[in-house]
Amino acid sequence: MPQLQNLLNNIINRVNVNLREFTDVGPHIRHLVDRNRLAGFYAFYGLTQHHPLYFKFNKSCLSGTYLLGKCEVNRSIIYKSDIRGDELKRRGDVVPFGDMKIRLFQDEIIYIRDSYLIKTLVHNHSHDPENLEKFGIRNTVALHWSNIHGAPVEGCFLGPFATVDLTSAHNCVFGTYSYTQVGELVNTFVKPGQVWIRTKDFEFNYQFDEEVLRRYVAYETGKAPSGILMDYVEERKADFMPIYSSIQEHPVPVPPGASLSPYAVVKGQTRIDKNVLVAQRAYLEEAWLGHGSNAQENCYIVHSSLEGEDVTAHGGKVVHAHLGKHVFVGFNAFLHGTPETPLQVGSNTIIMPHTIIDADEPLEIPSDTLVWGYIRNADDLKQHSIALVDLEKITDGMEMGAMRFSGSGKVFADAFRGRIRHILEENGAFFDEANNAGHAQKNQEMAFNILQPYPSGDLAGLYPKLEIKPTELETIDEFSAP
Amino acid sequence: MPQLQNLLNNIINRVNVNLREFTDVGPHIRHLVDRNRLAGFYAFYGLTQHHPLYFKFNKSCLSGTYLLGKCEVNRSIIYKSDIRGDELKRRGDVVPFGDMKIRLFQDEIIYIRDSYLIKTLVHNHSHDPENLEKFGIRNTVALHWSNIHGAPVEGCFLGPFATVDLTSAHNCVFGTYSYTQVGELVNTFVKPGQVWIRTKDFEFNYQFDEEVLRRYVAYETGKAPSGILMDYVEERKADFMPIYSSIQEHPVPVPPGASLSPYAVVKGQTRIDKNVLVAQRAYLEEAWLGHGSNAQENCYIVHSSLEGEDVTAHGGKVVHAHLGKHVFVGFNAFLHGTPETPLQVGSNTIIMPHTIIDADEPLEIPSDTLVWGYIRNADDLKQHSIALVDLEKITDGMEMGAMRFSGSGKVFADAFRGRIRHILEENGAFFDEANNAGHAQKNQEMAFNILQPYPSGDLAGLYPKLEIKPTELETIDEFSAP
Repeated sequence: MPQLQNLLNNIINRVNVNLREFTDVGPHIRHLVDRNRLAGFYAFYGLTQHHPLYFKFNKSCLSGTYLLGKCEVNRSIIYKSDIRGDELKRRGDVVPFGDMKIRLFQDEIIYIRDSYLIKTLVHNHSHDPENLEKFGIRNTVALHWSNIHGAPVEGCFLGPFATVDLTSAHNCVFGTYSYTQVGELVNTFVKPGQVWIRTKDFEFNYQFDEEVLRRYVAYETGKAPSGILMDYVEERKADFMPIYSSIQEHPVPVPPGASLSPYAVVKGQTRIDKNVLVAQRAYLEEAWLGHGSNAQENCYIVHSSLEGEDVTAHGGKVVHAHLGKHVFVGFNAFLHGTPETPLQVGSNTIIMPHTIIDADEPLEIPSDTLVWGYIRNADDLKQHSIALVDLEKITDGMEMGAMRFSGSGKVFADAFRGRIRHILEENGAFFDEANNAGHAQKNQEMAFNILQPYPSGDLAGLYPKLEIKPTELETIDEFSAP
Repeated sequence: MPQLQNLLNNIINRVNVNLREFTDVGPHIRHLVDRNRLAGFYAFYGLTQHHPLYFKFNKSCLSGTYLLGKCEVNRSIIYKSDIRGDELKRRGDVVPFGDMKIRLFQDEIIYIRDSYLIKTLVHNHSHDPENLEKFGIRNTVALHWSNIHGAPVEGCFLGPFATVDLTSAHNCVFGTYSYTQVGELVNTFVKPGQVWIRTKDFEFNYQFDEEVLRRYVAYETGKAPSGILMDYVEERKADFMPIYSSIQEHPVPVPPGASLSPYAVVKGQTRIDKNVLVAQRAYLEEAWLGHGSNAQENCYIVHSSLEGEDVTAHGGKVVHAHLGKHVFVGFNAFLHGTPETPLQVGSNTIIMPHTIIDADEPLEIPSDTLVWGYIRNADDLKQHSIALVDLEKITDGMEMGAMRFSGSGKVFADAFRGRIRHILEENGAFFDEANNAGHAQKNQEMAFNILQPYPSGDLAGLYPKLEIKPTELETIDEFSAP
């Protein structure tokens, strides 16, 4: 039997042991990607003077995957995924936990074993205080456009467009287009279309209507997902092709402090201002990105303008929209205007992750507002938003339609603001030509390395065993001049 | 000091210790390649199911270098070189030496340390019976278009276009455009333009005239070489540029059993027949390569036709020439016809390595002939060739112009014929759709992997430490089907 088939079988076995109470992952992944396709794409990793570097791959298929930072992959199939270990914790970092302060003895590393990730984003650092040095992904299946964000997972299944954010999860199923940020989770089934945030101080819960969800993201076992979100991505897939087959020049000027990945699509009259970060697999068309804005992986910014310090998070889509300053568009949010029904979003407004705004009429979203759920018109907007100043007054909960909130609105709003500020800092939005460098600056001089699988034979689609580390500087340094 | 500078200093020190009686290599290489150029090219390695695989790189710069097979590089600068470990001896091979038979306990590996190679070809396997498992290149400087062919070298300097062939060399200097094949050599200066073959049964010696040599390959310490051969290469350099910046489709049909490297240049009406091998950095223009012919690395076949089973060895140049069947054109030979002064070479003829035929008039070289030296017309040809049947009659030497031969002509001719046959076999010329596969067949499905140096900072131009091996098949193989 071809070794890639053996590997797939192994992963199915391993994950099924963990998820035996929930599901058999075999039918989901056994025929999802053709073996020839798995053998047909290269993997690539970025190298700069600024990023940590450590890769170790063995008995795995990495086709189409992008890697940065530190990562080990063992007995896994990682297809067109994005594994970014550039925000991992570092040796010497001190992590507070309750009253304790814990110091890291070594750099953290993303460690993927016995897993199958397809078009999955793995990012940030592990928020599990019990495993500070290892961001582990084990015995896990994650489907198209899912996000594993700072979330160590073991024995988990993520449906298409599902996000697990800052949550340690063991033996859980995350339904299609669900968003989970609850710190820790065991033996739980998160329903498709559930948006769930829980801390000790508050809980936010929104549930998409089944019918609506089916229209936007539908998934049938073993098939590629379908629906409006998937169509949007599929229709633009061909634009990425030339990018992967030749070395591109920057199609638009890149000002100081900004960086534009050569693996991003840039079309039409697009403008990038200072300190802007355009990540790999971002898609820009007729887009203006104002000072310090960022376009994260898998996001689409089309016929839209962003005034500055705006965040379009992983998988966010912003179409025919004007965003004021400092707007946050969360993971996999879909802001879909048209030339006839444009969107206006006021400054400082927070669009929750997994929000769908598909405008039937021109829509104006006020500034300093929290927005969630499913919105097609001004009436929907009223039912799915709240002024931040009003949110802050809430001390013991509220219900609005399919949304339930409990706990402190002020803590919720502050947590969000703090996180947005942190994202902007990390991405280099506040760089002043000397201080506050972030991804936008550190990514500027990045060299891309290309790894291929065995092209044929029994090992076709598998990658050779590889280990790569920083060159051993200290010894070279001793060379004396002649 | 930038680490690349430290590394260069180290190499100069190391080589100078070995070559203290001959030369200071510092002026030769200290300013030969700009540091930014060293940081500006990627290295790449081929991966197939057929080739052995092992690479380990540390504290080195590999810019522009092609690697295949097994190779370790340590504390070295390898610039635009071609390191092919696909003909190394293998574990279990038995090497006869005198009455003894020696079995290899492990695969042979090319091991490069404290060396500086620029545009150098390293190929074949080590012919040193004392070090069967390690083809070592240590404390050595090799300049533009030099060849280290099956020749372990330690403490050596190779001038531009110099070839060391099947010779273990210790503390030697090989002059510009010299060719050496003498088995073993210590503390020797081989003069520029010397063509020297010596075994226990015969010795061949030819010396190019100084003035002629200067016209074809001139070299001044610390500068790039010049002259007609260098001009020929430089004028065609730009044709390689697009090949390195995008993925090419095959520009001409590639029939069964043949392979055409995507890193070869193919221009004009070029035709490739069955079992033809076109290696990376071969250059074909208006060329017909008949059944089983091969175009090896750095060769040029331009406005020429090869009837079949012809060998154009590394660096050979064939211009406006018609070659009959089974013609051998040796390393760095220059066969230069023009539309007005075409060359005809009869079948089974052997053009010795480092032969220059620069035709002033149409020239017809008979079949079954040995040709050497410098030839511009029919008179020169008579002085620099001998029918193989006549060569075979020689038992104790002859002199013709600047050529001296001693020993057995028959052994010399047989050795050459045997080696040509071996080259054709290795390259897959005799493949019959099932048996006798060689490079032409094994290279057909090759995946290219791209490695980059640090793009900036103190480490700019150095490559990370990398180790790559076959994936660990045996463990994967154990996976049971679910």
